[in-house]
Amino acid sequence: MTDSSSHLERLVALNASAAFNRLAHFEVVAAGDGTAEIEMRWSDDLTQYFGYLHAGVIAALLDTACGFAASTLVGRVTASHFSMNCLRPAVGRRFVAKGATLRAGRKQVFAMAELFAENEQNQRVLVATGQTVLVPLAQESLER
Amino acid sequence: MTDSSSHLERLVALNASAAFNRLAHFEVVAAGDGTAEIEMRWSDDLTQYFGYLHAGVIAALLDTACGFAASTLVGRVTASHFSMNCLRPAVGRRFVAKGATLRAGRKQVFAMAELFAENEQNQRVLVATGQTVLVPLAQESLER
Amino acid sequence: MTDSSSHLERLVALNASAAFNRLAHFEVVAAGDGTAEIEMRWSDDLTQYFGYLHAGVIAALLDTACGFAASTLVGRVTASHFSMNCLRPAVGRRFVAKGATLRAGRKQVFAMAELFAENEQNQRVLVATGQTVLVPLAQESLER
Amino acid sequence: MTDSSSHLERLVALNASAAFNRLAHFEVVAAGDGTAEIEMRWSDDLTQYFGYLHAGVIAALLDTACGFAASTLVGRVTASHFSMNCLRPAVGRRFVAKGATLRAGRKQVFAMAELFAENEQNQRVLVATGQTVLVPLAQESLER
Repeated sequence: MTDSSSHLERLVALNASAAFNRLAHFEVVAAGDGTAEIEMRWSDDLTQYFGYLHAGVIAALLDTACGFAASTLVGRVTASHFSMNCLRPAVGRRFVAKGATLRAGRKQVFAMAELFAENEQNQRVLVATGQTVLVPLAQESLER
Repeated sequence: MTDSSSHLERLVALNASAAFNRLAHFEVVAAGDGTAEIEMRWSDDLTQYFGYLHAGVIAALLDTACGFAASTLVGRVTASHFSMNCLRPAVGRRFVAKGATLRAGRKQVFAMAELFAENEQNQRVLVATGQTVLVPLAQESLER
Repeated sequence: MTDSSSHLERLVALNASAAFNRLAHFEVVAAGDGTAEIEMRWSDDLTQYFGYLHAGVIAALLDTACGFAASTLVGRVTASHFSMNCLRPAVGRRFVAKGATLRAGRKQVFAMAELFAENEQNQRVLVATGQTVLVPLAQESLER
Repeated sequence: MTDSSSHLERLVALNASAAFNRLAHFEVVAAGDGTAEIEMRWSDDLTQYFGYLHAGVIAALLDTACGFAASTLVGRVTASHFSMNCLRPAVGRRFVAKGATLRAGRKQVFAMAELFAENEQNQRVLVATGQTVLVPLAQESLER
């Protein structure tokens, strides 16, 4: 078990090492034992054909929150399964993805995440939920 | 039923209207009644923390192939559920996502897609599969 | 909004009307606005090949908890998508499935459920989680 | 690689060892390298509240077809993730579930299945599709 500031420091570095996360301006804002929180400001570059946040970016936020949450417990992971429910159109000035680990096994880790959209009045609404099955990379050596 | 060239023309325009699809350089290369095919060249900007294609971009390719496949039958759609299995590390010089409609109902459309990575020798390997539940937008008016 | 005893009464009747729920001895033990709780005692008849609860019965418990939770808000529903994560082997003297509605839209309802196994000491452990996309039957008339 | 009759023989025995599969009268009718086919006759005991096949039984058929398909390649497996899309009401005199392995890794196996309903005229219609992430039991020893 590690203290939260050390988790946060490590995830901030991990986040900076991912080109897509830099492109989309993901920010790690909180981390705990088995949890992580990511934020992203609205960007007109990341939309689908009628101006909402693109499903791929919703997936990226949820998947990253899950993966980072898991990595506080088991180190680097890779997702083998990802699913999400899109509850409402994803619009807002900022998005917050909160990930939590459900079970960290030796071979597989299960995590889930919620994505909130924040409006100009700082009100948050749940826009999507995600689930992942992750594989720890140490045992895995990038081969499945 | 519409001829394929008209499907393709319409999807090319739809694709061009999505900011994220332009950013990631998605190209619609084929379309039929209930099917669509998207390609994307490798880009170092779209990677995760150890240099593979980011899960969010894998999701974006699969989801777009599903949505475009469905839209050839029922017009504009939005995904309410998306899931994917990541079978192998997503690396290659080019990616090809092939979407197909499983069932186009009045209220919901089911589609699936396969993502192939292509190497320098033009060999293709299946790296991920995706499934979507989509809602046609006419009936929906962007409100769920 | 209806009081909880009336929700419970209605779900008990609904549960009794489903042949499989009778066969597997599902019991509705709690209901609220958007929530429902199902219990089932262990039965040797419902196992898979090494003696744990069968994945189909895990799915049945999670799906029923989701559907019943949703039906307290929108009446009869049918699942169009179901997914589950099996976190631990499902063994115990009793199982408890707790369902909650995430979003009840006009065309689609999103619900999730947790399945707990209870041991001889009444200790509960989370063994599986499930998610559903449901379609209200009034608008649907059993046709998708 | 083993010949098909030996696969079939082994799966028939595996199927007979699962209490739920006996209760629901699952029959293994075909098996190959990475594939398996299960049949089940209609039974009024396995229905939900308006008389269609229960979602749990649909899940059981799809999950079993996936697991048996995978087990022809890697021996005994257990599902860690299962998802399904229910395309049409599941009614018919008989159901056929066809499972196929997408990728058999050392730590995880990915499989998918289709469920067909057969009417009195022996016409088949696709009623549901399923996907699984499976863990081989040898490496796993029933502990995740």
